[in-house]
Amino acid sequence: MMRKRYLMAPGPTPVPPEVLAAGAEPVLHHRGPDFRALMMRVLSRLQEVCRTKNDVLVFTASGSGAFESAIVNLLSQGERVLAVSAGEFGERWASTATAYGADVHDLRYSWGETPRPEDVKNRVEETGAEVVFLVHSETSTGVVADVQALARAAREAGAISVVDAVSSLGAVRLDTDAWGLDVVVSGSQKALMTPPGLSVSTVSSAAWERCARTTTPRVYFDWTRLRASLETGTTPFTPAVSLVVSLDKALEMLLEEGLEAAFARHAALGRACREGAKAMGLTLYSPDEERSAIVTAILTPDGVDARELVLALRQRFGITVAGGHGELGARMFRIGHIGYYDVFDITTALSAVEVLLAEGGADIERGAAVSRALEAFREAVSV
Amino acid sequence: MMRKRYLMAPGPTPVPPEVLAAGAEPVLHHRGPDFRALMMRVLSRLQEVCRTKNDVLVFTASGSGAFESAIVNLLSQGERVLAVSAGEFGERWASTATAYGADVHDLRYSWGETPRPEDVKNRVEETGAEVVFLVHSETSTGVVADVQALARAAREAGAISVVDAVSSLGAVRLDTDAWGLDVVVSGSQKALMTPPGLSVSTVSSAAWERCARTTTPRVYFDWTRLRASLETGTTPFTPAVSLVVSLDKALEMLLEEGLEAAFARHAALGRACREGAKAMGLTLYSPDEERSAIVTAILTPDGVDARELVLALRQRFGITVAGGHGELGARMFRIGHIGYYDVFDITTALSAVEVLLAEGGADIERGAAVSRALEAFREAVSV
Repeated sequence: MMRKRYLMAPGPTPVPPEVLAAGAEPVLHHRGPDFRALMMRVLSRLQEVCRTKNDVLVFTASGSGAFESAIVNLLSQGERVLAVSAGEFGERWASTATAYGADVHDLRYSWGETPRPEDVKNRVEETGAEVVFLVHSETSTGVVADVQALARAAREAGAISVVDAVSSLGAVRLDTDAWGLDVVVSGSQKALMTPPGLSVSTVSSAAWERCARTTTPRVYFDWTRLRASLETGTTPFTPAVSLVVSLDKALEMLLEEGLEAAFARHAALGRACREGAKAMGLTLYSPDEERSAIVTAILTPDGVDARELVLALRQRFGITVAGGHGELGARMFRIGHIGYYDVFDITTALSAVEVLLAEGGADIERGAAVSRALEAFREAVSV
Repeated sequence: MMRKRYLMAPGPTPVPPEVLAAGAEPVLHHRGPDFRALMMRVLSRLQEVCRTKNDVLVFTASGSGAFESAIVNLLSQGERVLAVSAGEFGERWASTATAYGADVHDLRYSWGETPRPEDVKNRVEETGAEVVFLVHSETSTGVVADVQALARAAREAGAISVVDAVSSLGAVRLDTDAWGLDVVVSGSQKALMTPPGLSVSTVSSAAWERCARTTTPRVYFDWTRLRASLETGTTPFTPAVSLVVSLDKALEMLLEEGLEAAFARHAALGRACREGAKAMGLTLYSPDEERSAIVTAILTPDGVDARELVLALRQRFGITVAGGHGELGARMFRIGHIGYYDVFDITTALSAVEVLLAEGGADIERGAAVSRALEAFREAVSV
């Protein structure tokens, strides 16, 4: 029997057919006038999505590559950085900076906690950190942090901010300039609705000043060289041309919907997913609040191994959701609702979960999740 | 009027429609079983194309990124390397290694010269270099070096070899294991007939031994971490999934043609291009020999600015060829004939050049290039 596939992990996310088709156009030469015009438009659209007048850099690399570029362009050997972490990604940036010889100080919360501005301020003052790493949406837990307040706290204590917005950019509000975010890193494969392989970084003038005196060696990820090329619409090394074409189309679609509408849609999707899961009788791991608009982390009922549920979703229904990281693997599954996603994707995911849990004999409410999700979505969008 | 576009630069190269279509399939999750099986097949096909049992690593990055990975995984601060260069790319690898603090010694030839094994042996002995950088096909000049002999000379003098095969892999013979090449770097966007964005590196056991003691920091380009992931068919960071699907299809097509047939085709294309250009009365910059099978560098007649010719080819006929680098810009243009390319692409390029030169009043032979190119191609393939 023909079976559709549903990509509902928190990245890579489903890509609109129009964007896939754009990526299948004949390859352009990256030094030619067509590509240059395309790249200039992409950079301008990215500025609009990031709400910034800062430079936007585009890398042929995953989001982790772009974050690494921030580390090697902003931190020389031994320079002090504060890494705020409350999940897998925060910890990844701390360990990457450590690998490059930065003097990394932690502000570490338990997984699932929400970082607090006053802690950031205190730790920056205590440690003398000059740079603070923040995670906007911690994909491993579903928590979206208030990076506006966190970056302000860092700034007031004298540090610049580097924000991991890989899974959040385009899905939840992020106002780079209004919030004074120095560096914002993101990837193509989340709310930007493009296949993975491109990543971006915005760079403020304060970040450029640091960059100019950073001595850590870098070539592929060197910002200065990349900016010089991008000013004329090309890149120092052959970029993933077809992904740039896709990204251009996806950004056009996102801006056509409008950022505010996209934020409202994601907030409503998050609410629908949480309300549906609760109606079924499941317990949320993600906080049950407005900002949790990107991925919903849910605990399985007692006695149900989340890994088996994730496997069964894929094998029975062609649905890919994510499991939990580390110790949470046995109890947590995560439904991503990012990018090219609507409420019927939520109901599809929830109804498939419901069938499998019911078949396994779990004590859940039948029939409640879908109608509650639809209702919650409608309530959210009509507010 | 509808105008077709012809990508005839030495990379990115034209991508077969089947490969573009494969890249437009719905995005797979990079931790799922479908992607893992796909990646394992890609790695195995790459081993076949590289003619190696060594590990093959796949990066989401351009070929320059993969070459940089060789530098940061093989060379600690101050370690001695010999960079053999006779064109732009050789020089690029020398300057990249210098940026990372390696003790870089040059064996530098004039652009267009062919490096000699005895020079490599002498320079390695003189300098005590432990690693030698070689360029298989120097795309800036059209020269294909005898890397088998060069790597042997390096090995006899006690150094391991890192070979830039970005524009050559799949187009001209390269026998990684039989020739004892320690590291071979290539990119998706040349003879592998895939859009740019992926690159590969093969790693011998001698190279792994060096890697284990290299202290240069690296995370995104760390070989050890990447190998550990690839052993289970995935990658540490989200890879360019859709490009991996494209690459799989392109490798299938290349292996279906057969490597020997592909080498013969490229050799015949090179011969057709050179013979056609000469028949028109043009002077070759690339050496007129069997190995020059990847890109043909041609000098314009006296008084004709090559930059204007390159521009006119694009504007009048939608044909993208490459200009010359640096000082050669005013006199040289380069026709790439790599990957998804047949003899009628050669005749298209030559006849367009002929029309434009004739219109400009250059003293060239009309009507000779196309028939001579077709004849030379037939002679070459029937040998």
